[in-house]
Amino acid sequence: MLLHLSTWHEVEVYLEQSKGIILPIGSTEQHGPTGLIGTDAICAEAVAKGVGEVIKAMVGPTINVGMALHHTAFPGTISLRPSTMILLIRDYITSLTKAGFTKFYFINGHGGNIATLKAAFSETYAHLEDLQIPNASKVQCQIGNWFMCGSVYKLAKELYGDEEGSHATPSEVALTQYIYPEAIKQVLLSSEVASSHKIYSATNFRECYPDGRMGSNPALATPEHGKQFYDLAVKELGNSYLEFMNSD
Amino acid sequence: MLLHLSTWHEVEVYLEQSKGIILPIGSTEQHGPTGLIGTDAICAEAVAKGVGEVIKAMVGPTINVGMALHHTAFPGTISLRPSTMILLIRDYITSLTKAGFTKFYFINGHGGNIATLKAAFSETYAHLEDLQIPNASKVQCQIGNWFMCGSVYKLAKELYGDEEGSHATPSEVALTQYIYPEAIKQVLLSSEVASSHKIYSATNFRECYPDGRMGSNPALATPEHGKQFYDLAVKELGNSYLEFMNSD
Amino acid sequence: MLLHLSTWHEVEVYLEQSKGIILPIGSTEQHGPTGLIGTDAICAEAVAKGVGEVIKAMVGPTINVGMALHHTAFPGTISLRPSTMILLIRDYITSLTKAGFTKFYFINGHGGNIATLKAAFSETYAHLEDLQIPNASKVQCQIGNWFMCGSVYKLAKELYGDEEGSHATPSEVALTQYIYPEAIKQVLLSSEVASSHKIYSATNFRECYPDGRMGSNPALATPEHGKQFYDLAVKELGNSYLEFMNSD
Amino acid sequence: MLLHLSTWHEVEVYLEQSKGIILPIGSTEQHGPTGLIGTDAICAEAVAKGVGEVIKAMVGPTINVGMALHHTAFPGTISLRPSTMILLIRDYITSLTKAGFTKFYFINGHGGNIATLKAAFSETYAHLEDLQIPNASKVQCQIGNWFMCGSVYKLAKELYGDEEGSHATPSEVALTQYIYPEAIKQVLLSSEVASSHKIYSATNFRECYPDGRMGSNPALATPEHGKQFYDLAVKELGNSYLEFMNSD
Amino acid sequence: MLLHLSTWHEVEVYLEQSKGIILPIGSTEQHGPTGLIGTDAICAEAVAKGVGEVIKAMVGPTINVGMALHHTAFPGTISLRPSTMILLIRDYITSLTKAGFTKFYFINGHGGNIATLKAAFSETYAHLEDLQIPNASKVQCQIGNWFMCGSVYKLAKELYGDEEGSHATPSEVALTQYIYPEAIKQVLLSSEVASSHKIYSATNFRECYPDGRMGSNPALATPEHGKQFYDLAVKELGNSYLEFMNSD
Amino acid sequence: MLLHLSTWHEVEVYLEQSKGIILPIGSTEQHGPTGLIGTDAICAEAVAKGVGEVIKAMVGPTINVGMALHHTAFPGTISLRPSTMILLIRDYITSLTKAGFTKFYFINGHGGNIATLKAAFSETYAHLEDLQIPNASKVQCQIGNWFMCGSVYKLAKELYGDEEGSHATPSEVALTQYIYPEAIKQVLLSSEVASSHKIYSATNFRECYPDGRMGSNPALATPEHGKQFYDLAVKELGNSYLEFMNSD
Repeated sequence: MLLHLSTWHEVEVYLEQSKGIILPIGSTEQHGPTGLIGTDAICAEAVAKGVGEVIKAMVGPTINVGMALHHTAFPGTISLRPSTMILLIRDYITSLTKAGFTKFYFINGHGGNIATLKAAFSETYAHLEDLQIPNASKVQCQIGNWFMCGSVYKLAKELYGDEEGSHATPSEVALTQYIYPEAIKQVLLSSEVASSHKIYSATNFRECYPDGRMGSNPALATPEHGKQFYDLAVKELGNSYLEFMNSD
Repeated sequence: MLLHLSTWHEVEVYLEQSKGIILPIGSTEQHGPTGLIGTDAICAEAVAKGVGEVIKAMVGPTINVGMALHHTAFPGTISLRPSTMILLIRDYITSLTKAGFTKFYFINGHGGNIATLKAAFSETYAHLEDLQIPNASKVQCQIGNWFMCGSVYKLAKELYGDEEGSHATPSEVALTQYIYPEAIKQVLLSSEVASSHKIYSATNFRECYPDGRMGSNPALATPEHGKQFYDLAVKELGNSYLEFMNSD
Repeated sequence: MLLHLSTWHEVEVYLEQSKGIILPIGSTEQHGPTGLIGTDAICAEAVAKGVGEVIKAMVGPTINVGMALHHTAFPGTISLRPSTMILLIRDYITSLTKAGFTKFYFINGHGGNIATLKAAFSETYAHLEDLQIPNASKVQCQIGNWFMCGSVYKLAKELYGDEEGSHATPSEVALTQYIYPEAIKQVLLSSEVASSHKIYSATNFRECYPDGRMGSNPALATPEHGKQFYDLAVKELGNSYLEFMNSD
Repeated sequence: MLLHLSTWHEVEVYLEQSKGIILPIGSTEQHGPTGLIGTDAICAEAVAKGVGEVIKAMVGPTINVGMALHHTAFPGTISLRPSTMILLIRDYITSLTKAGFTKFYFINGHGGNIATLKAAFSETYAHLEDLQIPNASKVQCQIGNWFMCGSVYKLAKELYGDEEGSHATPSEVALTQYIYPEAIKQVLLSSEVASSHKIYSATNFRECYPDGRMGSNPALATPEHGKQFYDLAVKELGNSYLEFMNSD
Repeated sequence: MLLHLSTWHEVEVYLEQSKGIILPIGSTEQHGPTGLIGTDAICAEAVAKGVGEVIKAMVGPTINVGMALHHTAFPGTISLRPSTMILLIRDYITSLTKAGFTKFYFINGHGGNIATLKAAFSETYAHLEDLQIPNASKVQCQIGNWFMCGSVYKLAKELYGDEEGSHATPSEVALTQYIYPEAIKQVLLSSEVASSHKIYSATNFRECYPDGRMGSNPALATPEHGKQFYDLAVKELGNSYLEFMNSD
Repeated sequence: MLLHLSTWHEVEVYLEQSKGIILPIGSTEQHGPTGLIGTDAICAEAVAKGVGEVIKAMVGPTINVGMALHHTAFPGTISLRPSTMILLIRDYITSLTKAGFTKFYFINGHGGNIATLKAAFSETYAHLEDLQIPNASKVQCQIGNWFMCGSVYKLAKELYGDEEGSHATPSEVALTQYIYPEAIKQVLLSSEVASSHKIYSATNFRECYPDGRMGSNPALATPEHGKQFYDLAVKELGNSYLEFMNSD
């Protein structure tokens, strides 16, 4: 059930049976020579919609731009600063909490969002309690990173071994190929790829990772792999969502 | 050309021939008993993609949540505060200006975004000049409101007369019906509809407009109308974009 | 009745009969070779005081500096950033709402303030409701732009035609001449004047409008015209204020 | 020379001979049963204009609302929060520094502004140096409190002794009587007046000082005293301004 | 070498040979019935000083209060909001970067700080590059969590097994006992202890964890254990710091 | 009684008999050729602990970094911006107020903190009342500057006369020598020392005060003097604290 395709009456009815909502969050950032700039948002949105269908949960609008400051030396990247993203998350949750939602499950496509999301949750819990909004103390947020699902990780290791890398990975590229087969890119990748550098400033990042990949070989990706990753992620995060909803 | 389906190399190539980008911005807010909560984002995104295809312009990710504080007494609405939205817009434009973009054309689906967008542009121009970012003084932002296109307005008047109203209008509902025919809602609308109240607090808004409509009769909408509105908006905003690109 | 010339007891008494207050807001910005830097504040203050006298309404202190970032490449201009101005407006309204005021009528002398004022109103309504301040949901703000009064506009067209322009206009210069006849400037204006450029960064603005005028010929202004504009604006905004007070 | 009555050309000429500007800052707050709510702004503005005339210095627009949070339990008071006021002062000085001003002399009418002004100056010096604005390191701000002038203090002691008190004082009331004789209030003051309480929250302040006075007897004020205070303050702050301008 | 016991000349000399600094960061929060409120700050400071001595590295002042919003329903807890802490960290690093430091190693005593620290680092890298501070692109921050050292973790498991828990743990209590033997608390702990609840709002946290412990049995702690933890942490973090300094 | 060496139970018990807490606040800034960078924090902490012992008052964690922007051109200085420090103070007091504290006594070691502290108190009183936190209107903050104690000042004058100066003073250096005799620095000081310059930007400060001292001769300091200053400050501030606690 997509919030964007619902009416407010339908939301009202939904809230009688569930206080939970899934919020997909991605990023708009370089993903190497062949990865799509929208990779993280595309994956999060697709998986979230899949989970929502299977589980009959409300799925909110995708947050297309996240915390990708370290990628901003590559053209096409758009990033919120962490301080902006904290306010954005706070505004989202505050709006929805006033309407009666109390369980927020973020399906996330970008590792760089995790720290800021967690900081935003802490900020928001305190904000809601400060304002004495009804049910403030019951608000709960959780992150489900599709790329960190045990089943996804296992398959990626089987298919790609060390060539999975940690950014512009074949697994995420495969998932976008499954969703947008018309946007599969054919570019010859250099066989050497940088890896193992820590992430600091945007300038430093581009110096360390000149083509944007971090130890990955996205040439291994196929749409069929993408389908497999999709199925695994939807199943695992669906269960994770249900567990979250059933916890106190 | 969609930014989300491009690689950073493709963006680099694009920037050699154009410094312009289209950014769709909508809202996530109640649209009356039959209108979709995502109406404004859906419309802005569809029109922006249409313009991008026709004009061969880059289209960035949709900003799904805008300034809809006055709708937050209805469940399902999500709103940024203006102060948050200013930071968000500033972060978007700053990221893209560093990459070389200087012309930002926002295709907007929500009247409530306009004031804050304009404030954000002013804030951003000064921010970029303060930081002495190259080309800062050349950055230009413009808003194209699809629903305020002369051709769109004319058709809406012809089709609906005064029943167009000003929120949850048949024209925007028609456009969403064209894009998502599977999400057409069948709800009996009361024949009386509130109108003419000014917009103040969220509580006051819901008191004044109990079912969320503002003087409109969205029951008049059809997907065929939606197609007409789509074609008109794409054409008119396409020309507006080209004019913007050709101006100094 | 001027707030600045009242005691707090008098305000208490006033609040028993009215919850309305007029707040003049101007700007401190270049107004071409002959226009006063304080033009927008001078005009707003004069008209507001005039309205206050006629209507027996409370008039608050003039906000002398507004949103004029695009004029800051000219010496003498002072501007708030929109984000600062939003906080300022929020603080003003919050202070006065706690005291019992609920109707805020801004008499505005500067087009560049409008977008940020509207954003500030939205921010403030939500802020007051968040804090659960008594009467928060009843707070209403409205803008009365003296220069956009129908009667003022009509007279300006009659007197100046296209030479009214859109900044450093003869109508606003005339009004300042009426109020400060001792500060009428005699400078030879070039017969050519820039016009039709959109407003972007401060640097760009000065490049487009080298002497600060936007399509105007302020040499046409006279103090007598100023008197006429004053009378029309006071009358029209007085009625507008009363209408605002009588609305729900 | 008033900035508000000057053109930008005149400012340009002024800057060739002086980099100094006087900025009057007051407050909009209760001043006891007979004191005007605008007292602090009225006094600061009058003295600033007087100094400007004598010394031929540029005088900027009056900051009518300052930091008066502790007075907000009395109707009519308007206050900025310190965090807002810091941004306001930063924006003012940044605008003027870009134009070439480097010496900012604040003529202040309200003790409650001092701490926040000093904090704002520190914030602004760092902000300007961070932005690498030309002359940033030369920017200097100073506060001239008219009510703390040695000569003013001496006269107040002579005229009123301990009845001068510390808020709604006869000296400031006298000064407003001199400037606005038409606004002299006749109210019987209770002979007892609270004093010696420290200033904490707004609620606490009103509990401690129920009529708003702090140990003062403003009934002693006369317009003639006001003239004397005015002359002393203009003279002493004029000298202080010159000393400031002549220092490195 | 402690920054607080150095002169600025000594810092200048130090910078000729090293650009690195250690910054201890803790928290001020409840640590169960027997744990000290300062536990996290005490441990971070002690370990940081130990590392600084062994490695001859500069150690900055301890950040005593961190992100502990979820503990604020227990008296004695003090917490920054994440948005405040981001500004604090940004200000620290900006000050030190201007002086020439580029490598910031945070020795952290509190798991709740990690997300906000990481968000703060991202914010700061971008801030420094935006301001074009020399060496901005070279700035690097790293976190060394003493309680997550492999050697520490191993010993804790050996000594306490599952009774280590995750807050008010015997290992951290032991370390404070070693440092402040005079502050060892004797309180009978209930044998049952809550565990496995996720962390959300402060109110919820106290409901879930009524005595403040999270699955731990701090009664097992001894000062002798503390000495062992101290030695292991100093050794392991010392190596980690050197590795950080030697990396690009 | 140190908060950091207490448990939350002990704080709960303490609150039954007292609502007061002492918060030491210092700075991390250059103190001339021989003064320690931590001077202000060291002194504030030592005096606060002394007062806490004598008076049996709770002493919170030391705020080691304050408002020292004007010293940031000297390496080793760390400063918060005033806007950050206001948030920090607000967060501290908000946390503690929720727990039941209402009287906050800041023992301060740095003149540069005073203005921002006062601004922060005003901001915080309003913040707490806005949030309708219980006892918000009773919250009271006070600053006790150890170096401005009458007894301390008198002794400094006796011992050092004009060579006390106003920064890197022999009195504060003496106090650090008493506390950290192992960190007494032996550097030959030039007999000439700058004085009498006002404080503006960091760059300007270093130009005016090239070795960091402001009119002082810290070579006169001895640990024995430090002991005397310590005893005087503890006694005088202890009395001041008690007076604060006994006031309404």
